[in-house]
Amino acid sequence: MAKDFPTREENYAQWYNDLVIKADLAENSAVRGSMVIKPYGYAIWERMQAALDKMFKDTGHVNAYFPLFIPKSFFSKEAAHVEGFAKECAVVTHYRLKNDPDGKGVVVDESAKLEEELIVRPTSETIIWDTYRNWIQSYRDLPILVNQWANVVRWEMRTRLFLRTAEFLWQEGHTAHETKEEAIAETEKILDVYTKFAEEWMAVPVLQGVKSPNERFAGAVETYCIEALMQDGKALQAGTSHFLGQNFAKAFDVKFLSKENKLEHVWATSWGVSTRLMGALIMSHSDDNGLVLPPKLAPIQVAIVPIYRKIEQLAEISEVAVKIKDALENLGIRVKYDDRDTYKPGWKFSEYEFKGVPVRLAIGPRDLENKTVEVARRDTLEKEVLHIEDIDIKVKNLLEQIQKNLFQKALNFREDNTRVANTWDEFKDIIENKGGFVLAHWDGTTETEEKIKEETKATIRTIPLNAKSDPGNCIYSGKPSNKRVIFARAY
Amino acid sequence: MAKDFPTREENYAQWYNDLVIKADLAENSAVRGSMVIKPYGYAIWERMQAALDKMFKDTGHVNAYFPLFIPKSFFSKEAAHVEGFAKECAVVTHYRLKNDPDGKGVVVDESAKLEEELIVRPTSETIIWDTYRNWIQSYRDLPILVNQWANVVRWEMRTRLFLRTAEFLWQEGHTAHETKEEAIAETEKILDVYTKFAEEWMAVPVLQGVKSPNERFAGAVETYCIEALMQDGKALQAGTSHFLGQNFAKAFDVKFLSKENKLEHVWATSWGVSTRLMGALIMSHSDDNGLVLPPKLAPIQVAIVPIYRKIEQLAEISEVAVKIKDALENLGIRVKYDDRDTYKPGWKFSEYEFKGVPVRLAIGPRDLENKTVEVARRDTLEKEVLHIEDIDIKVKNLLEQIQKNLFQKALNFREDNTRVANTWDEFKDIIENKGGFVLAHWDGTTETEEKIKEETKATIRTIPLNAKSDPGNCIYSGKPSNKRVIFARAY
Repeated sequence: MAKDFPTREENYAQWYNDLVIKADLAENSAVRGSMVIKPYGYAIWERMQAALDKMFKDTGHVNAYFPLFIPKSFFSKEAAHVEGFAKECAVVTHYRLKNDPDGKGVVVDESAKLEEELIVRPTSETIIWDTYRNWIQSYRDLPILVNQWANVVRWEMRTRLFLRTAEFLWQEGHTAHETKEEAIAETEKILDVYTKFAEEWMAVPVLQGVKSPNERFAGAVETYCIEALMQDGKALQAGTSHFLGQNFAKAFDVKFLSKENKLEHVWATSWGVSTRLMGALIMSHSDDNGLVLPPKLAPIQVAIVPIYRKIEQLAEISEVAVKIKDALENLGIRVKYDDRDTYKPGWKFSEYEFKGVPVRLAIGPRDLENKTVEVARRDTLEKEVLHIEDIDIKVKNLLEQIQKNLFQKALNFREDNTRVANTWDEFKDIIENKGGFVLAHWDGTTETEEKIKEETKATIRTIPLNAKSDPGNCIYSGKPSNKRVIFARAY
Repeated sequence: MAKDFPTREENYAQWYNDLVIKADLAENSAVRGSMVIKPYGYAIWERMQAALDKMFKDTGHVNAYFPLFIPKSFFSKEAAHVEGFAKECAVVTHYRLKNDPDGKGVVVDESAKLEEELIVRPTSETIIWDTYRNWIQSYRDLPILVNQWANVVRWEMRTRLFLRTAEFLWQEGHTAHETKEEAIAETEKILDVYTKFAEEWMAVPVLQGVKSPNERFAGAVETYCIEALMQDGKALQAGTSHFLGQNFAKAFDVKFLSKENKLEHVWATSWGVSTRLMGALIMSHSDDNGLVLPPKLAPIQVAIVPIYRKIEQLAEISEVAVKIKDALENLGIRVKYDDRDTYKPGWKFSEYEFKGVPVRLAIGPRDLENKTVEVARRDTLEKEVLHIEDIDIKVKNLLEQIQKNLFQKALNFREDNTRVANTWDEFKDIIENKGGFVLAHWDGTTETEEKIKEETKATIRTIPLNAKSDPGNCIYSGKPSNKRVIFARAY
């Protein structure tokens, strides 16, 4: 396994890119800005999907599917939405190709021009609310708790694998409610689902909060978010949950007859996480030796490697190895026994280390004699020799320990890299020289927010939920502020 | 539940369309030719996906994801493929919108024209083989056994929900092999997977065979297919598995160093099934009372309805109903206990009947006294009163029986509607007046095939695999033929 890639210290951006490609997670495609998600990367994404999908269903949601294409005119219906979304989009203008009269390949058939252009969905509020109009007549039809797993396209100029791609995979929930309170409760419930998923599955600690008006989703009344901190000190928005008020119901004329027999506009939420989470996962835990995966999301949780000189020894080792494999699989653990004779043990060790397999077991002739197994954990790179008795239980416990350790390590990192700034100079110094989250007072205006961004590239990542009142003065304008917000440079 | 829709006899096409809409499976969207798959329909599709995905993985396949967009020039690389696919496609020509100078909505920004147009994938052979070129160097990199779950777009002029839509959901497998034999074996293995899925999960019997050259996938050397027969006597192609030879490897220059150290082109297969299967499922089993679903794919397998006059009686009934529900769920059965007081039992009966729930249990005061339950099965519409003892086991057995019965009924229907034609008059008479599959001799030429299609609208659905030699004369041309093929009018 090739280790010819820079350390995080040397070049963090290159380290990330090389890691994604060399660990077989994803690669760039022939289509600018679109990636290919390779089987190993997709296997991780599938586990994320399965866990999230179960959490959505456990909280009463169902899946559905809406069209990829959205008529152009739909984007003009919600005023804020069009500003935020209708700009960098893929536009379908024709529906046919024909043979080039010159005999070279195919050309667009100009006679097959669409009357109205179709936009490849950048997000689906418009087409979904156009649909909900027919689904909702009375309060009996509410709530609608629908989620969709889909691909979306936003024409990004500067792309990075998983973090920012023209096409990406995501889920988008779109719910409809009788009351404002119920819609807000839904928005918050989903924020909790996302938080639980990030922390318990991805082992990535996140801050919960709301966005400043400037960073809100185009068309939302309030955008809730979870924010994670990467190892280079930059923040990453890991998921958003929007309270949309009645904006889309008004734009698409979606009304219901209430229990009080009044015609009212429906209240809405939307929420999503995407393949961007793959970027967060990779950047949170991986190191200069390669990928580090939390056991709950690792496609292979345990790799077993036989150590032998002569092929005759392999049969004896395999007998033990297969027993261990079966015992582990009976506990629901995903195991690969790698008895390929075409690669040396050292090569396999590097391979599983590089690909982030949480636990590697090695069994050699001496282990057979001593009834032992060498157990190596990826997170700490520690090795120990354990007696074979109850090895399945020991490994199961170790996997749980690794899952917890990764979370704790990431939490410690975030705590070590969350700083309070009380003056503008302090703020600039931290952002420039230390990175991480900065807790600072802000006067609440978009003007100040934008000036801070201009001068430091730092943005308000989130306004923490339930922060205690803590009066002070805006680090930039000196105007009064009643609580601190979180600033950082961000992905 | 509204039953104001025609019987199959009165108007089969309308019956199908109304059923899909009124049973909340899918509906037309604001985008011409694109459907919305509603939660109840999507829940069935999810079960199909889960079953198929497991079968693919059990046969060694992994999932990945490739771009939605394909550069236009890729389509010109495989000569047959461009003829078959590059015509009716959605073409992306621009990547930005801007505010209309007139102040009305948004217009396409002409300055954001793509240098090369992008085609929304109608199928992914081209982009995938362009990718495989970088994945494959030596025989050690083979086989590649990759599947993708994705949406695709083919610009259809006449669309029908699930059966033919501009956008549809599907899976497409794309495999790469060292040898011709291995690729053919893969093609056949997948045909068996599809057959098993159709028959064991969907309860739809299918014929296995290959397509005539005229009906082959554009770019394939051989197209294997499974064909089902619908209740109106029309055939429906339910899945295809293509042996692609070295066509795509040559078009995209994908070579590998063989064990003999020679540079050779890679052998390929591709295979897919789509949301079209939903149409096959609905049309195979449903009746004039609504949807009929095979238990294995039904989102709700058992509905329990309490019968009571006074609300006081409900608590007592619920106690028994919940116990039954728990016992059934412990056996892995999907149950809904419908204790809504806002609807009458009769309304609920119609609802579950219309939505195809395989088994409905009803419990009233007299049942409490007698320790009985009324059990109604959807497939035969029969009811019986059973003692409550071991009701969970009885229902489980009944579900298995229903699954088998649906398959047997569909198989009987197909056998009753498979006829032999020995003369052209006989052939025309069957096609025109009886429908179904017709076994007839064909001279093997595309010319004859097309003339038969012109005159009768019947096409060769499949050339059965392993059919015994049975010499005769072509029903149309009188030329010699050594085995019969299957003709039918088709969806």
